Amino acid sequence: MCSEKRHAPAGLQSDASVRLDLDRIRSAVFSIAPVFRNTPQYVCPPLGEALGCELILKLETANPIRCFKGRGAETVMTRLFNSGSRAAVCASAGNLGQALAYSGRSRQISTTVVAGSTANPYKLERIRALGATVCIVDGDIEDARHLARQIANSENAFLVEDSENIDTCEGAGTIGLELVEDIGSIDAVLIALGGGAMATGVGYVFKCLAPQVEVVCVQPRGAPAMALSWRTGSIVETAATDTIADGVAGRFPIPAVLDDLLVVADHVALVEEDSIIAGMRMLYRSAGLIVEPSAALGIAALLEDPPRYAGKRVATIICGGNVIPTDFERWVVQQSSE
Amino acid sequence: MCSEKRHAPAGLQSDASVRLDLDRIRSAVFSIAPVFRNTPQYVCPPLGEALGCELILKLETANPIRCFKGRGAETVMTRLFNSGSRAAVCASAGNLGQALAYSGRSRQISTTVVAGSTANPYKLERIRALGATVCIVDGDIEDARHLARQIANSENAFLVEDSENIDTCEGAGTIGLELVEDIGSIDAVLIALGGGAMATGVGYVFKCLAPQVEVVCVQPRGAPAMALSWRTGSIVETAATDTIADGVAGRFPIPAVLDDLLVVADHVALVEEDSIIAGMRMLYRSAGLIVEPSAALGIAALLEDPPRYAGKRVATIICGGNVIPTDFERWVVQQSSE
Repeated sequence: MCSEKRHAPAGLQSDASVRLDLDRIRSAVFSIAPVFRNTPQYVCPPLGEALGCELILKLETANPIRCFKGRGAETVMTRLFNSGSRAAVCASAGNLGQALAYSGRSRQISTTVVAGSTANPYKLERIRALGATVCIVDGDIEDARHLARQIANSENAFLVEDSENIDTCEGAGTIGLELVEDIGSIDAVLIALGGGAMATGVGYVFKCLAPQVEVVCVQPRGAPAMALSWRTGSIVETAATDTIADGVAGRFPIPAVLDDLLVVADHVALVEEDSIIAGMRMLYRSAGLIVEPSAALGIAALLEDPPRYAGKRVATIICGGNVIPTDFERWVVQQSSE
Repeated sequence: MCSEKRHAPAGLQSDASVRLDLDRIRSAVFSIAPVFRNTPQYVCPPLGEALGCELILKLETANPIRCFKGRGAETVMTRLFNSGSRAAVCASAGNLGQALAYSGRSRQISTTVVAGSTANPYKLERIRALGATVCIVDGDIEDARHLARQIANSENAFLVEDSENIDTCEGAGTIGLELVEDIGSIDAVLIALGGGAMATGVGYVFKCLAPQVEVVCVQPRGAPAMALSWRTGSIVETAATDTIADGVAGRFPIPAVLDDLLVVADHVALVEEDSIIAGMRMLYRSAGLIVEPSAALGIAALLEDPPRYAGKRVATIICGGNVIPTDFERWVVQQSSE
């Protein structure tokens, strides 16, 4: 439940109890290394002009792992360390794995990352360099999750399930605290939606502290399981994913996370691959940023639905920059020169 | 003079009085909008591995004008506003102009930016979008300076001469405060050297507060006037410049700035154009950053003199990201794919 009751009635859309807690999100701040906190948030005039709105970028890429997942990983690993555990395992397409490897190393927590064979090899290389053990399984992230559970059981390692583990959501939620505290009044916040840790964590903070802000979650049409689940109000699984946005490509939404999302999201957009690439290109050309596809979902949503945001003041979270240079060039630069 | 005398004897290399003042640099912090302060500073493992050292990046590009000059401009314009003036003029290759336009607009100070015909058109477009008047003169930045002086006289506008105006140096010096306060012990800091505002401001802070850190200033061999002046101890002017690093291309060093630089710099490196491009390419490929050439000078110096930095912990300031995408692609991406 929202721990600031004076805000709850206006912001939370139902009486359903949610797992998230504002006091825990606030206390998570102190678990997170400074290098992941107080990230840049700034109006980007050229990009806003191109999109017909005033656009605030919240940049989560300027840190050693180039994505927002350090916030959740630090929160998990601090609590794990304090509990005496010294081993962790996760399934990850890359960014969570990098984050846990980083946070594990600084706390002497042995970390194993299980990835599907389709995972971004650039990210896997970085995970190894940060000292974690990497296991590759045939299949996608859902197959990796299965093996991670087995390893957790057989090796007595703490299983970090992204989004299901509330620490990952509450750590990500600290992004919302920074936005609410410092950027003034906004009309909407656009958040990439994958497993749901960032969307629920950040969305919850807005629902508690700035309920007038529309919480818009954005998922690729090629990996729509959570979006479809939100729309129908119950879990929808998909047979496969087909998106370049590897960081948000899941097939099996987690029921507890969906419950949270149902409470905090005002709107969930599904966007085309072409829009994601167009968003990456705009971030490159007008903001000078190299981002991974997941980080362009918010821009993609602005591109697909201009009337919704025309003249408004909106924020989007640039959640990761881990993209293979040759992919970036193929998607963004070559298109950009045409 | 250094206002923390207990540090001065160890750090300052001569008894010469310098224009800079630590208390004024500390007070400049309060003149500068938060969006330009407390910028990311983080170890970048892949880049450090490639360069054989532990490398800390101080990122000054994640703000509305994509460069560090907001710090100096905010300092100038706050003091100007407090003095009652409402008009300013400067000569600028682009970044100072953008910064003054931004800071002038928020304070209702009418701002004119004079640029040479060789100035980066992307930057000039941004200056106009921020509401400043742009004047173009035939010639380079030195010709632009001449006209700016005339405009200042004829229109009673305050002339902001980058580096000569101590506020620009002290505003930039706040970068040094953030580095000294939060990154722990380092062996060297590498700073781009153009007119000298950033080099002297940041260098001075290190000399006062962390005198054991080697202050390395880096200039392109194709625009070496200030570097040659530092080496000979007196002003050396050059007939022309020949570098892609437009942000640091000057021909006439300012005597008062040279005096400061003589006190604060431990080493001044001149680097080749190929090294600047190689540095930009490494920042792109290993750090996911789009930077303008001036911002790669520190990496260029690391590339040209590996033994000097091997195994050390060094910091460099990524001072700007205003590069035309087609230039970036020609210099960096096409090379990168070969």
